[in-house]
Amino acid sequence: MSNLRLPGPTPVPPDVVEAMGHPMIDHRGKQFKEMLFRITESLKQAFETKNDVFLLTSSGPGAMEAAVVNTLSPGDKVLAVSIGNFGDRFSKIAKAYGADVTDLKSDEGLAADPEAIRAALKADHAIKAVLVTHNETSTGITNDLEAIAGIVKGEFDKLFLVDAVSSLGSIRVATDAWGLDVVVSASQKGWMCPPGLAMIAVSPRAWEAAKTAKMPKFYFDLAEAKSSLAKGQTPWTPTISVMYGMDHALQLMLDRGDMQAVYDFHTKIAQYTRDGLVKLGLKLVAQDERYASNTVTAAWVPEGITDSALLDMLRDEYDIIAAEGRGVLAGKVFRIGHMGYVRTEDIDDVLSALRDALPKLGFTPAAAS
Amino acid sequence: MSNLRLPGPTPVPPDVVEAMGHPMIDHRGKQFKEMLFRITESLKQAFETKNDVFLLTSSGPGAMEAAVVNTLSPGDKVLAVSIGNFGDRFSKIAKAYGADVTDLKSDEGLAADPEAIRAALKADHAIKAVLVTHNETSTGITNDLEAIAGIVKGEFDKLFLVDAVSSLGSIRVATDAWGLDVVVSASQKGWMCPPGLAMIAVSPRAWEAAKTAKMPKFYFDLAEAKSSLAKGQTPWTPTISVMYGMDHALQLMLDRGDMQAVYDFHTKIAQYTRDGLVKLGLKLVAQDERYASNTVTAAWVPEGITDSALLDMLRDEYDIIAAEGRGVLAGKVFRIGHMGYVRTEDIDDVLSALRDALPKLGFTPAAAS
Repeated sequence: MSNLRLPGPTPVPPDVVEAMGHPMIDHRGKQFKEMLFRITESLKQAFETKNDVFLLTSSGPGAMEAAVVNTLSPGDKVLAVSIGNFGDRFSKIAKAYGADVTDLKSDEGLAADPEAIRAALKADHAIKAVLVTHNETSTGITNDLEAIAGIVKGEFDKLFLVDAVSSLGSIRVATDAWGLDVVVSASQKGWMCPPGLAMIAVSPRAWEAAKTAKMPKFYFDLAEAKSSLAKGQTPWTPTISVMYGMDHALQLMLDRGDMQAVYDFHTKIAQYTRDGLVKLGLKLVAQDERYASNTVTAAWVPEGITDSALLDMLRDEYDIIAAEGRGVLAGKVFRIGHMGYVRTEDIDDVLSALRDALPKLGFTPAAAS
Repeated sequence: MSNLRLPGPTPVPPDVVEAMGHPMIDHRGKQFKEMLFRITESLKQAFETKNDVFLLTSSGPGAMEAAVVNTLSPGDKVLAVSIGNFGDRFSKIAKAYGADVTDLKSDEGLAADPEAIRAALKADHAIKAVLVTHNETSTGITNDLEAIAGIVKGEFDKLFLVDAVSSLGSIRVATDAWGLDVVVSASQKGWMCPPGLAMIAVSPRAWEAAKTAKMPKFYFDLAEAKSSLAKGQTPWTPTISVMYGMDHALQLMLDRGDMQAVYDFHTKIAQYTRDGLVKLGLKLVAQDERYASNTVTAAWVPEGITDSALLDMLRDEYDIIAAEGRGVLAGKVFRIGHMGYVRTEDIDDVLSALRDALPKLGFTPAAAS
């Protein structure tokens, strides 16, 4: 089996795969209802919320779309804070549905600047909602969501929609304590599950906004999700297999006592990955290590080497699947995922392959010089 | 394992479950590209089309939404032909996105009347598109799609969007020969797979309509699906596990020589189910057996018995999961699914349970009288 080191899909533990093999059941029956309630309750623990949490049969962008179309109307002013590819995507969704979007972008490798967000909100009081990516996988940067929430909610009391797709489950998100209105995640990231299932938490404030939200929707209509959940159901036939996997994976995660152990593990393995890369003479994309992501590390491809030569060699000679750059970083960086089901040995394997491969490609790692 | 006799989710064969256990792979890599192309080509055979076919990570209604929002603009006149719950749903989707919908409904248990469709199209030349459910699972009726297509396409040349969610893979749909513009299906019906993956075929005429279609979309934007497929990818991280299942299931289906053998099997098992129910003194919802569905049979719950008493007894005493009524038929009918992975023994099991259960509930089957 390849050493899959993408920021999603991530490897799935054997017993989660086994759980997914459960025979199909009636998605309008008692057994399903029990599983749905169990998953929902576990997710509330992981999201640190008492808000409604729904499962959607889609990838992450589907849940991001749900966040937007359920709370906003065409013409609503939105501040879209982007530090990379996935932040840009959130902005595109809002624009596709007719929001009046102000983009606030940072240079690559930087976290969002809370001061700039404060200034933007001060400059335009008509802004209704703020979109933020918690963890930007394209650059390997985690925004200081608590600080940003302090401004967006604490100072300006705006509707706050958060893409936590690649953080939640691996990096702490205190939904209620930080006052996040809508928070989305997806199964193939920190949750040790295959892709196909997205999650979304919705605050009372977001429900209030939903009452007047005029963007059209059907499949992602959360009012349908809410009335179905009251009956222990989903509006549409859900991805039952992935739900069985998620049910099991959540038990594995919560059985560790609390989620803090999971977060601590990710802090440690991320530091280990960064230290290893730096020791090899590589340069991290993250300009300030305080904001380096605990779920994925992006490093610059050394000069004189192409990203495809490096990624192909890692794949063909070492059976390691690392990720290429996205958006403006395409061709310039490579990325190592370390979220969910990952062990120190998996990272050792990557580091030792790089130590071996880089000289063959013409780059002499610092450690070897 | 229960005898799951729903019109979806349907049982999954053990080797499809095994295929789904494949380790996660890079959804931007060569292995994924090969699988995606293989599935797409197999689906083109099953859909009988040379049109584009895309996979969407969603349930069936997501693909129905994609059909609507990619081809229509708010205000467009649409004729929504409904013979039950799922036809109503297609209409609701079009309305949710602002289409000007004329509903054409039939009485429960009847197929859509081609004459009525002709009259409706004659009465309003401004109608741009027609929505039709091929197989209505809520009533167990299959529309004569070929005859309807002869009118919608042959006589009036309208944009024709078809919900074939619960027919395709079990009941023939000749997409190109009948001139269907958009055709949707979903994995948990005739395809012997778990839910979570939808399919959609798009004709050149539908692409032409897409150019001017102004309904907003993002997750279900088929232009994104098209440009991604050209690279052997999907726009968003797809449901890889279900795709592995689908890849295997399609090989099983197509290995039988051609799909005709699969259709013949469904014709036979449906007839067998109906004959068995009628022999027990039960009355089919289908008023004309020529339109009785080959994938699901709906029968009236005998007078003096509640549907829940019958369904609960089947479940608790015989381990058979049958389906309740939907929409206007809720409480009045029960339904037996017989699509995908089903054997004659599964139907025998249902019939013998009914023979045993009905007298206990106070109904004397005809055969026993």
